[in-house]
Amino acid sequence: MTLNPALDLTYTVDELVRHATHRVGVVAEHAGGKGLNVANVLHALGEPVLATGLLGGRTGTHVRALVDAAGLAGSFVTIGGETRRTVTVVDRADATGLWEPGPTVTSAEWAAFAEHYESLMAGASVVVLSGSLPQGLRPDTYAVLIAAAKRHGVRTVLDTSGEALVHGAAAAPDVVKPNAEEARAIGRTGTLVVSRGREGLIAYTGEGTFEAAAPEIVEGNPTGAGDACAAAIARGLRDGTPWPALLADAAALAAAAVAAPVAGAVDLDEYDRLRRRGPHVQPDR
Amino acid sequence: MTLNPALDLTYTVDELVRHATHRVGVVAEHAGGKGLNVANVLHALGEPVLATGLLGGRTGTHVRALVDAAGLAGSFVTIGGETRRTVTVVDRADATGLWEPGPTVTSAEWAAFAEHYESLMAGASVVVLSGSLPQGLRPDTYAVLIAAAKRHGVRTVLDTSGEALVHGAAAAPDVVKPNAEEARAIGRTGTLVVSRGREGLIAYTGEGTFEAAAPEIVEGNPTGAGDACAAAIARGLRDGTPWPALLADAAALAAAAVAAPVAGAVDLDEYDRLRRRGPHVQPDR
Repeated sequence: MTLNPALDLTYTVDELVRHATHRVGVVAEHAGGKGLNVANVLHALGEPVLATGLLGGRTGTHVRALVDAAGLAGSFVTIGGETRRTVTVVDRADATGLWEPGPTVTSAEWAAFAEHYESLMAGASVVVLSGSLPQGLRPDTYAVLIAAAKRHGVRTVLDTSGEALVHGAAAAPDVVKPNAEEARAIGRTGTLVVSRGREGLIAYTGEGTFEAAAPEIVEGNPTGAGDACAAAIARGLRDGTPWPALLADAAALAAAAVAAPVAGAVDLDEYDRLRRRGPHVQPDR
Repeated sequence: MTLNPALDLTYTVDELVRHATHRVGVVAEHAGGKGLNVANVLHALGEPVLATGLLGGRTGTHVRALVDAAGLAGSFVTIGGETRRTVTVVDRADATGLWEPGPTVTSAEWAAFAEHYESLMAGASVVVLSGSLPQGLRPDTYAVLIAAAKRHGVRTVLDTSGEALVHGAAAAPDVVKPNAEEARAIGRTGTLVVSRGREGLIAYTGEGTFEAAAPEIVEGNPTGAGDACAAAIARGLRDGTPWPALLADAAALAAAAVAAPVAGAVDLDEYDRLRRRGPHVQPDR
C-alpha cells in the first residue's frame, strides 16, 4: 500500500559530478514508491498481490498505465493532485535520489481511500504499509489503517520513517521495519526488523533475536533493497515461516534487489544463487 | 528552432550531495531545450517569435501544452519517438544537469520537418538554430537548414556544439555562438560570439572585436544564460543594432537569465537594472 507513489526515473551515468552536466546513458521508467516496489517484488516472485494507494494527474495516469503494463494488479483511488516523480541517479559507486514532494491530499480523498482500503481487507492476509505520507494526511494515518487491518484479521508490516513511523508503531503492527537510526525512536510493540545496510538485518521477535546477512557483498543500486526485505517479510508472515528462515530469505532477496539496476526489481538468478549459498543467520547473544 | 526539445524539470535543493537522497523543495516544469529557452526569452521581452522543432510521445504532448500555456506561438512537427526530459538540480552554489538522450528521428520525419521549416522561412527575419541534434539526424543537418534560410534571405544564429557545430559553421551562418573551448574547433566564416562564463562575451565581427561583461557578478542558475545571449543576438540582427550595443545588451540579458531560477526565464527587473548600470563593453586590442 502506497499513499505517496511515484513515477520513478532511474538515470544511469558514469559518475555523478556536482555542478556538471551529464548525458544520461540509460533511462528506466517505472511505477515506484516503496509500496509499489514491494508489490513489484512479490509479483516477480509469482506471489498474488494487489497494489493500492492514491494516484492523480498526468503522472498518476502514467503510473497506473505502467502498473497495468507490468501485469501487476492495482486498485487505486484517484485524487485531484499530481502524483510525484522520483529521480534516482545510479553511477558506478552508488545511487543519488531526488524526490519531488508530491500532492496534498484532501480530507474527502482520505475518507474515500479509507473506505476503499477497508473493502480490500476482506481478501487480504497481509498488508504492507510503506513509505512517506503525502501532505494533508495526519501523522497517525498508518495507525488508523493498521487498526482497520486488525479488525479484519489481516497481518501488518509497517515500513516508514519519522513521525509517521512513531505514530504508526504505536498501533502495534505485526512487524515494524525501520532503519537502525529510526529503530531507536520507537518502542517495542511487535516484531522489529532493522535493516543496517551491508551489515544485514536484525530481527527482534517473540521467538528470539536473529541476525542475517547476505553471504557476500553485492554491488549495485541499494534503492529498493528495503522494499524487497519487506516483501519477504510479508510472504513469510502469510506462510508462517519461522523467523530464522524468513530472515535468511529477506537478506537474500534484499541483496538480489541491490543487484538489479532499477529500484523495485530483483535479480531472480542472483536471488536463487544467494539462497543456495545460504545467507548467514545466527541467533543474537 | 529546437530539433531536440525537452520537458525541463528544475529541482531546487539546499545542496546536492552525491549518493544521498534529497527531498526536492521546489519543482518547476517548463518547455525546455536551448531553442525553446531562446523563444521563451524573446517572448518575455515582447518580441514576436515562433518556436518550431520536433515533438513526440506523451512528453512531447505535454511540452506542446506548456508552450501553449505560456502563450508562446509554436509550430512543431510530430515524431513517433518520445521527447526527452532534462533535469536541472539547482542548489545554493550552482546547477547540475541530467539530460535524457531523446528520441531517434527517422528520415521521413526529417523530410517532413525540412519542408515545414522551409514554409516558415517566408515569415521570418532571423532563425536561431539551437542545441544538440537528436539521434538519426546527419551531422550536417544545421548546414542544410542554414542554406535553406539563406535562400529566403533569413539571417541565422547557430548555437550548438561538437560535430553539429563544426558542420553547421561550415555553412557560414551570420553568427556562431560557441563556448571558448568549442570556438577553437571551428574556422571564422561569419561573426563569432564566444561566451566565457563570468568573464563575459567576446565578439569577432566585421566591425571589429568587442568584449562585454555584466557590471557585476550575478549569482544563480547559469543554465539558459547562453540562450538569453542568443535571443539578444537574434533581436540585434533583426534590428541592425551595432555590435557594441548588441553585445552589451546580450551580456545584461544573460546575467538576467542567471538571476532567474528557471532555465529559459529572465529576471526582467534585473535586466533593466543591469542595462541601466551599463555592461562593460570595450573594443579588444
